[in-house]
Amino acid sequence: MTERLPVELPKAYRLLNHGPTVLVGSAHDGRRNVMAAAWSMPLDFSPPKVAVVIDRNTLTRELVEASGEFSLNVPARAIARETLAVGSVSGHDVDKFAPDTGVKAFEGSRIGAPLIEGCLAWLECRVIPEPHNQDRYDLFLGEVVAAWADPRAFRDGRWQFEPGVPRSLHYIAGGNFFETGAAFEVRA
Amino acid sequence: MTERLPVELPKAYRLLNHGPTVLVGSAHDGRRNVMAAAWSMPLDFSPPKVAVVIDRNTLTRELVEASGEFSLNVPARAIARETLAVGSVSGHDVDKFAPDTGVKAFEGSRIGAPLIEGCLAWLECRVIPEPHNQDRYDLFLGEVVAAWADPRAFRDGRWQFEPGVPRSLHYIAGGNFFETGAAFEVRA
Repeated sequence: MTERLPVELPKAYRLLNHGPTVLVGSAHDGRRNVMAAAWSMPLDFSPPKVAVVIDRNTLTRELVEASGEFSLNVPARAIARETLAVGSVSGHDVDKFAPDTGVKAFEGSRIGAPLIEGCLAWLECRVIPEPHNQDRYDLFLGEVVAAWADPRAFRDGRWQFEPGVPRSLHYIAGGNFFETGAAFEVRA
Repeated sequence: MTERLPVELPKAYRLLNHGPTVLVGSAHDGRRNVMAAAWSMPLDFSPPKVAVVIDRNTLTRELVEASGEFSLNVPARAIARETLAVGSVSGHDVDKFAPDTGVKAFEGSRIGAPLIEGCLAWLECRVIPEPHNQDRYDLFLGEVVAAWADPRAFRDGRWQFEPGVPRSLHYIAGGNFFETGAAFEVRA
Protein backbone atom coordinates (compact mmCIF):
# COMPACT_ATOMS: atom_id res chain seq x y z
CA MET A 1 0.00 0.00 0.00
CA THR A 2 1.16 3.52 -0.80
CA GLU A 3 2.59 5.37 2.19
CA ARG A 4 0.58 8.39 3.19
CA LEU A 5 0.86 11.18 5.71
CA PRO A 6 -1.77 13.68 6.83
CA VAL A 7 -1.83 17.10 5.13
CA GLU A 8 -2.79 19.97 7.41
CA LEU A 9 -6.18 21.23 6.31
CA PRO A 10 -5.24 24.87 5.54
CA LYS A 11 -2.75 23.48 2.97
CA ALA A 12 -5.12 20.94 1.44
CA TYR A 13 -5.98 23.35 -1.41
CA ARG A 14 -2.42 22.91 -2.67
CA LEU A 15 -3.18 19.32 -3.58
CA LEU A 16 -5.54 20.62 -6.30
CA ASN A 17 -4.16 24.10 -7.00
CA HIS A 18 -2.24 23.01 -10.11
CA GLY A 19 -5.37 21.59 -11.73
CA PRO A 20 -4.79 17.82 -11.81
CA THR A 21 -7.38 15.36 -13.01
CA VAL A 22 -8.92 13.54 -10.04
CA LEU A 23 -10.76 10.36 -9.24
CA VAL A 24 -14.03 10.73 -7.34
CA GLY A 25 -14.75 7.95 -4.85
CA SER A 26 -18.24 7.34 -3.48
CA ALA A 27 -20.18 4.79 -1.44
CA HIS A 28 -23.65 4.29 0.01
CA ASP A 29 -25.56 1.41 1.51
CA GLY A 30 -23.10 -1.31 0.49
CA ARG A 31 -22.42 0.04 -3.01
CA ARG A 32 -19.30 1.94 -4.00
CA ASN A 33 -17.87 3.52 -7.14
CA VAL A 34 -15.04 5.58 -8.60
CA MET A 35 -15.01 7.86 -11.67
CA ALA A 36 -12.54 10.28 -13.25
CA ALA A 37 -13.20 14.04 -13.22
CA ALA A 38 -11.20 16.71 -14.99
CA TRP A 39 -13.53 19.41 -13.71
CA SER A 40 -12.66 20.12 -10.09
CA MET A 41 -11.01 23.01 -8.28
CA PRO A 42 -10.34 24.41 -4.82
CA LEU A 43 -13.03 26.80 -3.60
CA ASP A 44 -11.63 28.07 -0.29
CA PHE A 45 -8.56 27.85 1.92
CA SER A 46 -9.75 27.32 5.50
CA PRO A 47 -11.88 25.49 6.13
CA PRO A 48 -10.87 24.04 2.77
CA LYS A 49 -13.64 23.64 0.24
CA VAL A 50 -13.69 22.17 -3.26
CA ALA A 51 -16.00 22.20 -6.29
CA VAL A 52 -16.46 19.27 -8.67
CA VAL A 53 -18.79 18.53 -11.57
CA ILE A 54 -20.61 15.16 -11.27
CA ASP A 55 -22.86 14.32 -14.22
CA ARG A 56 -26.45 13.40 -13.39
CA ASN A 57 -26.29 10.10 -15.28
CA THR A 58 -23.49 8.61 -13.19
CA LEU A 59 -23.70 6.10 -10.35
CA THR A 60 -21.29 8.42 -8.54
CA ARG A 61 -23.99 11.10 -8.57
CA GLU A 62 -26.49 8.74 -6.97
CA LEU A 63 -24.05 7.62 -4.27
CA VAL A 64 -22.79 11.13 -3.50
CA GLU A 65 -26.31 12.53 -3.19
CA ALA A 66 -27.39 9.65 -0.97
CA SER A 67 -24.34 9.66 1.32
CA GLY A 68 -23.38 13.35 1.32
CA GLU A 69 -19.72 12.39 0.96
CA PHE A 70 -17.05 11.89 -1.68
CA SER A 71 -13.30 11.48 -1.94
CA LEU A 72 -11.06 13.29 -4.42
CA ASN A 73 -7.96 11.28 -5.29
CA VAL A 74 -5.03 12.63 -7.33
CA PRO A 75 -3.85 9.78 -9.58
CA ALA A 76 -0.21 9.25 -10.56
CA ARG A 77 0.88 8.66 -14.13
CA ALA A 78 1.39 4.97 -13.28
CA ILE A 79 -2.41 4.58 -13.10
CA ALA A 80 -3.30 6.72 -16.13
CA ARG A 81 -4.78 3.65 -17.85
CA GLU A 82 -7.02 2.93 -14.85
CA THR A 83 -7.94 6.63 -14.67
CA LEU A 84 -9.09 6.55 -18.28
CA ALA A 85 -10.91 3.25 -17.75
CA VAL A 86 -12.95 4.38 -14.72
CA GLY A 87 -13.85 7.52 -16.67
CA SER A 88 -15.01 5.54 -19.71
CA VAL A 89 -17.55 3.11 -18.23
CA SER A 90 -20.43 3.54 -15.80
CA GLY A 91 -20.68 2.01 -12.36
CA HIS A 92 -24.29 1.31 -13.35
CA ASP A 93 -22.90 -1.31 -15.77
CA VAL A 94 -19.70 -2.67 -14.21
CA ASP A 95 -17.98 -3.03 -10.85
CA LYS A 96 -14.97 -0.75 -11.23
CA PHE A 97 -13.26 -2.51 -8.32
CA ALA A 98 -13.56 -5.99 -9.87
CA PRO A 99 -10.22 -7.85 -9.62
CA ASP A 100 -9.45 -7.55 -13.35
CA THR A 101 -9.67 -3.74 -13.31
CA GLY A 102 -6.56 -3.32 -11.16
CA VAL A 103 -8.36 -0.56 -9.24
CA LYS A 104 -8.02 -0.96 -5.46
CA ALA A 105 -9.57 1.02 -2.67
CA PHE A 106 -8.81 1.59 0.99
CA GLU A 107 -10.77 3.20 3.79
CA GLY A 108 -10.71 6.86 4.65
CA SER A 109 -10.59 8.21 8.18
CA ARG A 110 -13.64 10.49 8.27
CA ILE A 111 -15.92 9.40 5.43
CA GLY A 112 -17.30 6.13 4.08
CA ALA A 113 -16.33 6.80 0.45
CA PRO A 114 -13.34 4.76 -0.73
CA LEU A 115 -9.87 6.21 -1.29
CA ILE A 116 -7.96 4.87 -4.31
CA GLU A 117 -4.61 3.07 -4.25
CA GLY A 118 -1.80 4.36 -6.48
CA CYS A 119 -2.77 8.00 -6.04
CA LEU A 120 -0.52 10.79 -4.81
CA ALA A 121 -3.03 12.57 -2.59
CA TRP A 122 -6.49 12.07 -1.13
CA LEU A 123 -9.11 14.54 0.07
CA GLU A 124 -12.02 13.32 2.18
CA CYS A 125 -15.00 15.61 1.54
CA ARG A 126 -18.49 16.19 2.89
CA VAL A 127 -21.04 17.67 0.51
CA ILE A 128 -22.13 21.23 1.25
CA PRO A 129 -25.75 20.86 0.15
CA GLU A 130 -26.58 23.31 -2.64
CA PRO A 131 -29.52 21.68 -4.47
CA HIS A 132 -29.82 24.44 -7.07
CA ASN A 133 -26.18 24.02 -8.18
CA GLN A 134 -26.49 20.25 -8.16
CA ASP A 135 -29.74 20.18 -10.15
CA ARG A 136 -28.97 22.93 -12.63
CA TYR A 137 -25.21 22.61 -13.21
CA ASP A 138 -24.24 19.14 -11.88
CA LEU A 139 -22.00 21.19 -9.58
CA PHE A 140 -21.13 19.86 -6.14
CA LEU A 141 -19.40 21.79 -3.37
CA GLY A 142 -17.65 19.99 -0.55
CA GLU A 143 -15.76 20.70 2.65
CA VAL A 144 -12.47 18.86 2.98
CA VAL A 145 -12.52 17.11 6.38
CA ALA A 146 -9.26 15.15 6.03
CA ALA A 147 -6.38 15.17 3.54
CA TRP A 148 -3.47 12.84 2.88
CA ALA A 149 -0.48 12.67 0.55
CA ASP A 150 2.25 10.29 -0.52
CA PRO A 151 5.31 11.92 1.08
CA ARG A 152 7.46 11.04 -1.93
CA ALA A 153 5.39 13.52 -3.98
CA PHE A 154 4.01 16.03 -1.44
CA ARG A 155 5.66 16.96 1.84
CA ASP A 156 6.24 20.06 3.99
CA GLY A 157 3.09 21.50 2.43
CA ARG A 158 4.21 21.31 -1.20
CA TRP A 159 4.54 19.06 -4.21
CA GLN A 160 8.11 17.84 -4.68
CA PHE A 161 8.32 15.98 -7.95
CA GLU A 162 11.99 15.07 -8.00
CA PRO A 163 13.25 12.77 -10.77
CA GLY A 164 11.84 9.29 -10.32
CA VAL A 165 8.87 10.54 -8.31
CA PRO A 166 5.53 9.79 -9.95
CA ARG A 167 3.73 12.88 -11.27
CA SER A 168 0.10 13.90 -11.43
CA LEU A 169 -2.04 14.00 -14.58
CA HIS A 170 -3.98 16.58 -16.54
CA TYR A 171 -6.62 15.12 -18.83
CA ILE A 172 -7.16 16.51 -22.33
CA ALA A 173 -9.62 14.31 -24.27
CA GLY A 174 -9.74 10.98 -26.10
CA GLY A 175 -7.23 9.16 -23.88
CA ASN A 176 -4.72 12.01 -24.10
CA PHE A 177 -3.10 13.43 -20.99
CA PHE A 178 -0.36 15.80 -19.98
CA GLU A 179 1.76 14.93 -17.02
CA THR A 180 2.62 17.69 -14.58
CA GLY A 181 5.76 19.32 -15.96
CA ALA A 182 8.86 21.11 -14.70
CA ALA A 183 8.64 23.23 -11.57
CA PHE A 184 10.05 26.74 -11.64
CA GLU A 185 9.98 29.85 -9.49
CA VAL A 186 9.55 33.48 -10.52
CA ARG A 187 9.82 36.68 -8.49
CA ALA A 188 7.43 39.55 -9.03
CA MET B 1 0.57 40.80 -31.50
CA THR B 2 0.07 37.08 -30.99
CA GLU B 3 -1.71 35.35 -33.83
CA ARG B 4 -5.08 33.92 -32.87
CA LEU B 5 -7.75 31.85 -34.50
CA PRO B 6 -11.30 31.17 -33.35
CA VAL B 7 -11.98 27.97 -31.39
CA GLU B 8 -15.36 26.39 -32.09
CA LEU B 9 -17.47 26.75 -28.97
CA PRO B 10 -18.16 23.04 -28.29
CA LYS B 11 -14.39 22.56 -28.02
CA ALA B 12 -13.74 25.62 -25.85
CA TYR B 13 -13.74 23.47 -22.69
CA ARG B 14 -10.51 21.90 -23.91
CA LEU B 15 -8.71 25.19 -23.37
CA LEU B 16 -9.20 24.73 -19.61
CA ASN B 17 -9.59 20.96 -19.27
CA HIS B 18 -5.97 20.40 -18.20
CA GLY B 19 -6.29 22.83 -15.30
CA PRO B 20 -4.06 25.78 -16.26
CA THR B 21 -3.80 28.93 -14.20
CA VAL B 22 -5.69 31.76 -15.92
CA LEU B 23 -5.78 35.53 -16.01
CA VAL B 24 -9.20 37.12 -15.46
CA GLY B 25 -9.80 40.28 -17.48
CA SER B 26 -12.55 42.74 -16.55
CA ALA B 27 -13.77 46.24 -17.43
CA HIS B 28 -16.60 48.59 -16.54
CA ASP B 29 -17.31 52.24 -17.07
CA GLY B 30 -13.82 53.19 -18.26
CA ARG B 31 -11.94 51.10 -15.69
CA ARG B 32 -10.29 47.78 -16.47
CA ASN B 33 -8.27 45.18 -14.60
CA VAL B 34 -6.59 41.78 -14.78
CA MET B 35 -5.86 39.28 -12.01
CA ALA B 36 -4.49 35.74 -11.82
CA ALA B 37 -6.74 32.86 -10.77
CA ALA B 38 -5.69 29.27 -10.13
CA TRP B 39 -9.26 28.31 -9.23
CA SER B 40 -11.22 27.93 -12.45
CA MET B 41 -12.65 24.98 -14.36
CA PRO B 42 -14.98 24.06 -17.21
CA LEU B 43 -18.58 23.53 -16.11
CA ASP B 44 -20.28 22.35 -19.32
CA PHE B 45 -19.56 21.45 -22.93
CA SER B 46 -22.20 23.11 -25.11
CA PRO B 47 -23.05 25.82 -24.66
CA PRO B 48 -19.69 25.98 -22.89
CA LYS B 49 -19.73 27.21 -19.31
CA VAL B 50 -16.97 27.89 -16.82
CA ALA B 51 -16.63 28.43 -13.08
CA VAL B 52 -14.09 30.74 -11.45
CA VAL B 53 -13.47 31.99 -7.91
CA ILE B 54 -13.18 35.80 -7.66
CA ASP B 55 -12.44 37.09 -4.16
CA ARG B 56 -14.78 39.78 -2.81
CA ASN B 57 -11.93 42.17 -2.02
CA THR B 58 -10.68 42.48 -5.60
CA LEU B 59 -11.30 45.22 -8.13
CA THR B 60 -11.98 42.40 -10.58
CA ARG B 61 -14.98 41.40 -8.47
CA GLU B 62 -16.39 44.91 -8.63
CA LEU B 63 -15.92 45.18 -12.40
CA VAL B 64 -17.28 41.69 -13.15
CA GLU B 65 -20.37 42.26 -11.01
CA ALA B 66 -21.00 45.63 -12.63
CA SER B 67 -20.44 44.55 -16.24
CA GLY B 68 -21.63 40.93 -16.17
CA GLU B 69 -18.60 39.93 -18.25
CA PHE B 70 -15.08 38.58 -17.86
CA SER B 71 -12.33 37.08 -19.99
CA LEU B 72 -10.30 34.01 -19.07
CA ASN B 73 -6.83 34.07 -20.61
CA VAL B 74 -4.39 31.14 -20.53
CA PRO B 75 -0.91 32.61 -19.99
CA ALA B 76 2.25 31.12 -21.49
CA ARG B 77 5.39 30.48 -19.47
CA ALA B 78 6.97 33.54 -21.08
CA ILE B 79 4.64 35.75 -19.02
CA ALA B 80 4.86 33.81 -15.74
CA ARG B 81 6.43 36.85 -14.07
CA GLU B 82 3.56 39.08 -15.18
CA THR B 83 1.07 36.39 -14.12
CA LEU B 84 2.54 36.38 -10.62
CA ALA B 85 2.66 40.18 -10.55
CA VAL B 86 -1.00 40.73 -11.48
CA GLY B 87 -1.92 38.13 -8.86
CA SER B 88 0.12 39.84 -6.14
CA VAL B 89 -1.22 43.41 -6.21
CA SER B 90 -4.72 44.89 -6.30
CA GLY B 91 -6.21 46.92 -9.11
CA HIS B 92 -7.57 49.10 -6.29
CA ASP B 93 -3.96 50.23 -5.71
CA VAL B 94 -2.19 50.10 -9.08
CA ASP B 95 -2.94 50.19 -12.81
CA LYS B 96 -1.90 46.72 -13.90
CA PHE B 97 -1.70 47.91 -17.51
CA ALA B 98 0.72 50.76 -16.73
CA PRO B 99 3.61 50.76 -19.25
CA ASP B 100 6.19 49.49 -16.75
CA THR B 101 4.17 46.34 -15.99
CA GLY B 102 4.65 44.87 -19.46
CA VAL B 103 1.02 43.71 -19.38
CA LYS B 104 -0.82 44.55 -22.59
CA ALA B 105 -4.45 44.11 -23.49
CA PHE B 106 -6.43 43.91 -26.71
CA GLU B 107 -10.13 43.97 -27.43
CA GLY B 108 -12.40 40.95 -27.49
CA SER B 109 -15.09 40.35 -30.08
CA ARG B 110 -18.19 39.89 -27.92
CA ILE B 111 -17.40 41.44 -24.54
CA GLY B 112 -15.90 44.67 -23.24
CA ALA B 113 -13.44 42.99 -20.86
CA PRO B 114 -9.83 43.07 -22.09
CA LEU B 115 -7.98 40.05 -23.48
CA ILE B 116 -4.32 39.73 -22.49
CA GLU B 117 -1.35 39.64 -24.87
CA GLY B 118 1.15 36.81 -24.59
CA CYS B 119 -1.48 34.25 -23.71
CA LEU B 120 -2.14 30.98 -25.53
CA ALA B 121 -5.93 31.07 -25.43
CA TRP B 122 -8.76 33.41 -24.61
CA LEU B 123 -12.36 32.78 -23.52
CA GLU B 124 -14.88 35.62 -23.64
CA CYS B 125 -17.51 34.99 -20.96
CA ARG B 126 -20.83 36.42 -19.80
CA VAL B 127 -21.74 35.96 -16.15
CA ILE B 128 -24.60 33.56 -15.44
CA PRO B 129 -26.05 35.43 -12.48
CA GLU B 130 -26.11 33.25 -9.37
CA PRO B 131 -26.09 35.74 -6.48
CA HIS B 132 -26.07 33.07 -3.77
CA ASN B 133 -22.88 31.46 -5.16
CA GLN B 134 -21.27 34.85 -5.65
CA ASP B 135 -22.11 36.11 -2.17
CA ARG B 136 -21.47 32.95 -0.19
CA TYR B 137 -18.56 31.31 -2.07
CA ASP B 138 -17.04 34.04 -4.31
CA LEU B 139 -17.99 31.60 -7.07
CA PHE B 140 -18.86 32.93 -10.53
CA LEU B 141 -20.36 30.95 -13.38
CA GLY B 142 -20.08 32.15 -16.95
CA GLU B 143 -21.12 31.18 -20.44
CA VAL B 144 -18.34 31.23 -23.03
CA VAL B 145 -19.56 33.35 -25.96
CA ALA B 146 -16.32 33.39 -27.98
CA ALA B 147 -13.00 31.54 -27.75
CA TRP B 148 -9.61 32.00 -29.39
CA ALA B 149 -6.24 30.30 -29.40
CA ASP B 150 -2.71 30.82 -30.63
CA PRO B 151 -2.51 28.22 -33.42
CA ARG B 152 1.10 27.40 -32.51
CA ALA B 153 -0.19 25.93 -29.23
CA PHE B 154 -3.81 24.89 -29.95
CA ARG B 155 -5.18 23.89 -33.32
CA ASP B 156 -7.60 21.34 -34.79
CA GLY B 157 -9.38 21.34 -31.44
CA ARG B 158 -6.39 20.33 -29.32
CA TRP B 159 -3.27 21.55 -27.54
CA GLN B 160 -0.14 20.79 -29.55
CA PHE B 161 2.88 21.69 -27.45
CA GLU B 162 5.66 20.68 -29.77
CA PRO B 163 9.26 21.55 -28.80
CA GLY B 164 9.75 25.29 -28.91
CA VAL B 165 6.06 26.04 -28.47
CA PRO B 166 5.29 27.99 -25.30
CA ARG B 167 3.44 26.00 -22.66
CA SER B 168 0.72 26.85 -20.18
CA LEU B 169 1.20 27.22 -16.42
CA HIS B 170 -0.12 25.62 -13.26
CA TYR B 171 0.30 27.74 -10.15
CA ILE B 172 1.38 26.19 -6.86
CA ALA B 173 2.03 28.92 -4.26
CA GLY B 174 4.67 31.52 -3.34
CA GLY B 175 5.82 32.25 -6.89
CA ASN B 176 6.16 28.56 -7.74
CA PHE B 177 4.65 27.11 -10.89
CA PHE B 178 4.64 23.93 -12.89
CA GLU B 179 4.64 24.17 -16.63
CA THR B 180 2.37 21.81 -18.56
CA GLY B 181 4.43 18.64 -19.08
CA ALA B 182 4.79 15.84 -21.59
CA ALA B 183 1.73 14.69 -23.53
CA PHE B 184 0.97 10.99 -23.71
CA GLU B 185 -1.88 8.75 -24.78
CA VAL B 186 -3.28 5.66 -23.10
CA ARG B 187 -5.87 3.14 -24.26
CA ALA B 188 -8.43 1.72 -21.89
